[in-house]
Amino acid sequence: MASVLVINGPNLNMLGKREPGIYGSETLADVEERIARRAGDLGVAVEFFQSNHEGAIIDRIHQAFGLCDGIVINPGAFTHYSYAIRDALSSVQIPFVEIHISNIHAREAFRKESVLAPLAIGQISGLGTYGYELALDALAHYLRKNEKMKL
Amino acid sequence: MASVLVINGPNLNMLGKREPGIYGSETLADVEERIARRAGDLGVAVEFFQSNHEGAIIDRIHQAFGLCDGIVINPGAFTHYSYAIRDALSSVQIPFVEIHISNIHAREAFRKESVLAPLAIGQISGLGTYGYELALDALAHYLRKNEKMKL
Amino acid sequence: MASVLVINGPNLNMLGKREPGIYGSETLADVEERIARRAGDLGVAVEFFQSNHEGAIIDRIHQAFGLCDGIVINPGAFTHYSYAIRDALSSVQIPFVEIHISNIHAREAFRKESVLAPLAIGQISGLGTYGYELALDALAHYLRKNEKMKL
Amino acid sequence: MASVLVINGPNLNMLGKREPGIYGSETLADVEERIARRAGDLGVAVEFFQSNHEGAIIDRIHQAFGLCDGIVINPGAFTHYSYAIRDALSSVQIPFVEIHISNIHAREAFRKESVLAPLAIGQISGLGTYGYELALDALAHYLRKNEKMKL
Amino acid sequence: MASVLVINGPNLNMLGKREPGIYGSETLADVEERIARRAGDLGVAVEFFQSNHEGAIIDRIHQAFGLCDGIVINPGAFTHYSYAIRDALSSVQIPFVEIHISNIHAREAFRKESVLAPLAIGQISGLGTYGYELALDALAHYLRKNEKMKL
Amino acid sequence: MASVLVINGPNLNMLGKREPGIYGSETLADVEERIARRAGDLGVAVEFFQSNHEGAIIDRIHQAFGLCDGIVINPGAFTHYSYAIRDALSSVQIPFVEIHISNIHAREAFRKESVLAPLAIGQISGLGTYGYELALDALAHYLRKNEKMKL
Amino acid sequence: MASVLVINGPNLNMLGKREPGIYGSETLADVEERIARRAGDLGVAVEFFQSNHEGAIIDRIHQAFGLCDGIVINPGAFTHYSYAIRDALSSVQIPFVEIHISNIHAREAFRKESVLAPLAIGQISGLGTYGYELALDALAHYLRKNEKMKL
Amino acid sequence: MASVLVINGPNLNMLGKREPGIYGSETLADVEERIARRAGDLGVAVEFFQSNHEGAIIDRIHQAFGLCDGIVINPGAFTHYSYAIRDALSSVQIPFVEIHISNIHAREAFRKESVLAPLAIGQISGLGTYGYELALDALAHYLRKNEKMKL
Amino acid sequence: MASVLVINGPNLNMLGKREPGIYGSETLADVEERIARRAGDLGVAVEFFQSNHEGAIIDRIHQAFGLCDGIVINPGAFTHYSYAIRDALSSVQIPFVEIHISNIHAREAFRKESVLAPLAIGQISGLGTYGYELALDALAHYLRKNEKMKL
Amino acid sequence: MASVLVINGPNLNMLGKREPGIYGSETLADVEERIARRAGDLGVAVEFFQSNHEGAIIDRIHQAFGLCDGIVINPGAFTHYSYAIRDALSSVQIPFVEIHISNIHAREAFRKESVLAPLAIGQISGLGTYGYELALDALAHYLRKNEKMKL
Amino acid sequence: MASVLVINGPNLNMLGKREPGIYGSETLADVEERIARRAGDLGVAVEFFQSNHEGAIIDRIHQAFGLCDGIVINPGAFTHYSYAIRDALSSVQIPFVEIHISNIHAREAFRKESVLAPLAIGQISGLGTYGYELALDALAHYLRKNEKMKL
Amino acid sequence: MASVLVINGPNLNMLGKREPGIYGSETLADVEERIARRAGDLGVAVEFFQSNHEGAIIDRIHQAFGLCDGIVINPGAFTHYSYAIRDALSSVQIPFVEIHISNIHAREAFRKESVLAPLAIGQISGLGTYGYELALDALAHYLRKNEKMKL
Repeated sequence: MASVLVINGPNLNMLGKREPGIYGSETLADVEERIARRAGDLGVAVEFFQSNHEGAIIDRIHQAFGLCDGIVINPGAFTHYSYAIRDALSSVQIPFVEIHISNIHAREAFRKESVLAPLAIGQISGLGTYGYELALDALAHYLRKNEKMKL
Repeated sequence: MASVLVINGPNLNMLGKREPGIYGSETLADVEERIARRAGDLGVAVEFFQSNHEGAIIDRIHQAFGLCDGIVINPGAFTHYSYAIRDALSSVQIPFVEIHISNIHAREAFRKESVLAPLAIGQISGLGTYGYELALDALAHYLRKNEKMKL
Repeated sequence: MASVLVINGPNLNMLGKREPGIYGSETLADVEERIARRAGDLGVAVEFFQSNHEGAIIDRIHQAFGLCDGIVINPGAFTHYSYAIRDALSSVQIPFVEIHISNIHAREAFRKESVLAPLAIGQISGLGTYGYELALDALAHYLRKNEKMKL
Repeated sequence: MASVLVINGPNLNMLGKREPGIYGSETLADVEERIARRAGDLGVAVEFFQSNHEGAIIDRIHQAFGLCDGIVINPGAFTHYSYAIRDALSSVQIPFVEIHISNIHAREAFRKESVLAPLAIGQISGLGTYGYELALDALAHYLRKNEKMKL
Repeated sequence: MASVLVINGPNLNMLGKREPGIYGSETLADVEERIARRAGDLGVAVEFFQSNHEGAIIDRIHQAFGLCDGIVINPGAFTHYSYAIRDALSSVQIPFVEIHISNIHAREAFRKESVLAPLAIGQISGLGTYGYELALDALAHYLRKNEKMKL
Repeated sequence: MASVLVINGPNLNMLGKREPGIYGSETLADVEERIARRAGDLGVAVEFFQSNHEGAIIDRIHQAFGLCDGIVINPGAFTHYSYAIRDALSSVQIPFVEIHISNIHAREAFRKESVLAPLAIGQISGLGTYGYELALDALAHYLRKNEKMKL
Repeated sequence: MASVLVINGPNLNMLGKREPGIYGSETLADVEERIARRAGDLGVAVEFFQSNHEGAIIDRIHQAFGLCDGIVINPGAFTHYSYAIRDALSSVQIPFVEIHISNIHAREAFRKESVLAPLAIGQISGLGTYGYELALDALAHYLRKNEKMKL
Repeated sequence: MASVLVINGPNLNMLGKREPGIYGSETLADVEERIARRAGDLGVAVEFFQSNHEGAIIDRIHQAFGLCDGIVINPGAFTHYSYAIRDALSSVQIPFVEIHISNIHAREAFRKESVLAPLAIGQISGLGTYGYELALDALAHYLRKNEKMKL
Repeated sequence: MASVLVINGPNLNMLGKREPGIYGSETLADVEERIARRAGDLGVAVEFFQSNHEGAIIDRIHQAFGLCDGIVINPGAFTHYSYAIRDALSSVQIPFVEIHISNIHAREAFRKESVLAPLAIGQISGLGTYGYELALDALAHYLRKNEKMKL
Repeated sequence: MASVLVINGPNLNMLGKREPGIYGSETLADVEERIARRAGDLGVAVEFFQSNHEGAIIDRIHQAFGLCDGIVINPGAFTHYSYAIRDALSSVQIPFVEIHISNIHAREAFRKESVLAPLAIGQISGLGTYGYELALDALAHYLRKNEKMKL
Repeated sequence: MASVLVINGPNLNMLGKREPGIYGSETLADVEERIARRAGDLGVAVEFFQSNHEGAIIDRIHQAFGLCDGIVINPGAFTHYSYAIRDALSSVQIPFVEIHISNIHAREAFRKESVLAPLAIGQISGLGTYGYELALDALAHYLRKNEKMKL
Repeated sequence: MASVLVINGPNLNMLGKREPGIYGSETLADVEERIARRAGDLGVAVEFFQSNHEGAIIDRIHQAFGLCDGIVINPGAFTHYSYAIRDALSSVQIPFVEIHISNIHAREAFRKESVLAPLAIGQISGLGTYGYELALDALAHYLRKNEKMKL
């Protein structure tokens, strides 16, 4: 059974409390519950991690090395400048999907640029918290396909 | 039953014939068949349109005005400069999801910029032709949610 | 009697249907009728053309070669990138006035740049659909003045 | 009867004396006479002001506060850098039309950018001194339309 | 009684030890004491927090959610790139004043840009450690005014 | 007794009349009265000057040479382009504090850049007209401190 | 016998009618005749296509897939922005030579950038309509050399 | 006898009082005296004008129209942004030499750009107040040469 | 005996596990052992620190204040954006050498810019893990030279 | 008989030795022999010059003044920065064709810009060493045409 | 007696032969003769050097070290990119005046930037070959003044 | 025994004479002697070359082709623009280390960019003339390692 780590970056612990006009009123716990349910449907094991500390996210990614098959990551504002997280993802060589709840192309100019995206399998943005489920679905699909190719 | 139009822009008729290292070997017909099947599962009516002509795409979008509830669009290279398609989408006020088969952040620099994305609900890129299914799924989810909000 | 061609570019067929907050509720037919009436007052023959196809606009401009004395053109979104229309206008050497219904300086940044304007006699923007009448008036004035200079 | 102030910025007092290849040989007095005549036709009261002093133009705009219904302004070279005049126009909240005698898009690069235009109703350029008449016409049209909307 | 949190970012614990030519010789403790005294005069409760860890500052801001009425923040070098702190401040919706001891416009070019300032009430820079007192004063003034407006 | 000159640049005479959503409804006279009162508390003599003329502001700064100990200046829109005022302040070598009523980082992009700030002691922005009092307070504090250092 | 497609983009149908100072007075038919003669000398079969429609050019390139050995293309103004034609050429994987009649480096700045050139074998510019013959010659040379390498 | 106008822009009245490390300790009167003496040697009539007001400089340039044969101008900080003075110099068509006391290439970046220089005969910078004498010498030389060419 | 602190930034704990094509297969422990041996040869005491946390690196640098004579730092990805580490190094005023294992000029564009380098004694890049030994050698050389100069 | 000088810039003496994957295995002597043969066919006299010294190339161009009718130049890396060679070509007023063996648009970004091309008749790139023959052919064609026009 | 070296860079040996519309018809020998005569008047010894070789100019500057009191240099096109000549001038620490015959601000954009000017005493441009005499005059003036200051 | 060529570019012959504050007082001969001694210790044969002529450096690099195993190069100011030396190093395919005596990141902005560095093994800067010894050490280390890998 494929194992997926779902990482949420800074301020996503405030989900549901923060700018609900942009992000909706669900809490992160609500969202993780929904993701877990979808993981069940997809036959994927899923773990969750949230931190406001760039270093803690890097440590967690390193920890996943050799243990996780894929990562779904919403890097929050680290999307735009954390070359250190980029290097962490590159160092563990685990395929990952980047996800953003809001449409990063419809907000401030600095949100357009993702320093992680060039290394991702793909990126989903603007589809709300439902985007996490789609990201997990896409990752599971990707892992199954690659698995088959090896056989 | 919600009605969705799936638009494919220039060169996507060459799918399966073109640069298979980047896009895979399925033809557009194969992909449309898969999308249609998923549409059935989602309880959504779906129509398809492909053209290499910017003007024809604009005409088709106008035609959808008042008839379609949502659009899934892979604008191909028009993504990067067709302000005319942007205005067309804006003029009909139909919610749309933008989708790219390959990861536009991992290719040439000019592919990073989408002139349509600021008006989209969201954008999916890099998840292969499976991304069309995710886009449709996301759009159906979005339409159901908005429907509910109106009741 | 001077002969003027009035060209409307992509999405202007949606006039009155599209974003009325910006463009008002008149249809293109309404506007053309008003232009025709003003043309009568000015003693100018007037023809109309609208297309969402860049190539069709180019073909129409070529057709006007040697037949029209002036052009009033609202290039819509082609304003910002159609170097091909620019070359078409340059190739037929017909004096033209560029017109925009909304104030292109008060909207998105990309709307500020016109690739046609350097070749135009002049540009009118932001004065609503009344701007077409002013453009025609200006063009007629220009043609009369040049006519006189030749005599 | 609507009251309109026509402001001419630096060096426009040299009209007719200066670079006639670009601006023609009429003097500013000639042009103002023609504008006044057109104002009569349009049923609009018109006042004139010219200065080479940015501060004097600002003072004059402030003076118009509560007294004028509209402004036609050719800001000359102040177009490109006078954020102070921009703020003056913004402070009095009088609708204005910006006019340039020559086509600012066909000259030096710095002439393309207008710091006032984003606040204007609209902009007319390149249509010679006839542009003043068109600007007045457009402004009168605008004021009548707004008047009607209030009733 | 209004409650204000005073946050100092990276390297401000070195105050008095570091580059005294630029920052003066007071320690952070000295400064906090002076701020506390002024808080007393202003009838404001004040708490202090300093950290060199971006994540710890974010956690502290989240903690203040619903408990503090205002924030005075000297983000140190995070001023120039911490979009994560920006999002934290945005998520808690607490009004804040940004303060810099030295004049950020008179040093290296990168110090001119603050990614937080667009969300702040205001910014004070270059007025030495006295700037903290002014920031607190301004914030207290702001809170009293807003309080009154609600009554 | 230290002597301070308070300079207000273009359009600040419209204070209270102009865009009250941004600047509040006090007139400049009201603000100057409040500043004068605070000057009394601080034991500082204060003079006021307002002009919409860049040249007049330069003349006034020169006049202060050898007579004033400090300047508080709100340069209005001159902030962004008046290198001439910058040179004037540099020529008289009088310490000055720059103040802006609104938050210049939360408005149009051009308002971010101050050509004077690199020469100022410091800058205050976004704290409303109360910012003048803070600027005066800061300047008085600065002058007392420098005075002491000389003894 | 190698088969070559010669494509001419927008406005090249106006050759001989348009800006003769820059392009000379031959018509496109004259030029095609000369190319055909040179093709005979080179032992190459040649077909011609001209269109002002980007989409038609893309369709024609797709049609050549598996049928043509090489393409000579003068993309006209599409040179500078048609990423869609770029993708079309990339999708059919037919070697092509880009040709411009005038020297694109000696005209307006926007003419310097070709979005197709990075995918071309090579580019010829400024050598008049004779450049078509050189392009054909170069392409024939290239095809013979590659043919030999395969044997 | 040729007649030359020597214009000094903002802050040059402070010469000798201002930043003597950069500009030396002579006053403007001293410099003008030296220029007058050199003018005598060169057989040239010379007039002086200094103002801190952009508008006054423009007025003075207009006044020189048809009366002066040449202008020596040190535009001070107006060098870098006064397109209005540029237009004034262009409108009177009087040949002028631009002079700067300090080396504008060895100071702040903004001092490198002169908006007047493209219209000048030439520019002298960094040669101290002696540069005025050289500028006058150069202008006299230029006028004699042109005079001769007419004969 | 001089005391040197060797700091390794984010992801360098993955050395030997990560992208061996770029960084080689030694672990960080291996490298530190080799550095320690070279330190012995050079008569220098050496301590090691690695962290993925920017804040922890800043804390460690502060701790070294007054205790270490020099720092060798491989800031990993923090090289490119950590102005906070830059300020930390500046605050303790300890001479440091920056080292990169791979050639930062031969990789992605963002790796070219180091925000620390302007404050370093020098920078070594691309010489593999051997670069640490060279950096230590250089630092020891630098400290001896400065020591001598004081005697 | 027209006389043509063929200049090869820096590193072209290494042809055949250097990066054969990009430039092929012919030596410069081989290429010159082929050019000479083609010159014979075209009835053109041809001379060759190669140097790695910018100054030597300039001297050689000056020498050709009044003696050569045309120049074929492959400026090697000087293409991108030698304004001195540009001025040399401009000073002798000899028509020249610029040629590059590899496609300069398909390599590093700096190779795209040619400082000579704006003065050339035309440019050929990417067509291998065969490009020299085409350049000679084009130049001969150009000289014959101009010759005819004079008769 | 002060000793001055006059250096002329690439293509200035073509003076009088080259683009006379821009540079006049005097040869370099004529100009040097005039400079020598003026040197006599100024009581200055003068030597001349011209080369098209950057390296030769550097060698010549080194040679002047300790022997020349000043340099007048027209670096020709090296002005815009020869950081090596800049370093040479810096290494010998001889005061120099930069001179350009034509107005570098009225020609191609690349001619505006001088990499030498920040190190020069001053720069003269656009005053024809007479500029050399002015440069010498200025340099002699500068040397006398500095001489006096030492006494 | 490995053979290494040490190249010094323009102005490095002035070492010890030039700007000793930045480069120290050793002459180039002193430095070469120290390098030679270190070469002895490392068991490496070493040759030296210095020139102020770009072309001579290129010639010398070509000469090393097939004879030298490595190059240590201090390109002086050529670092920043000599694409010709870059091509020379690329054409001979000899591994090289780039060295700068001063810290190029702590000086003028133009010194940051090296056009050679992307092709180097590595770069050392700011470590004084001791950097040459480190560069040689690193190169010897590199050559030994590669040698071993071949066995």
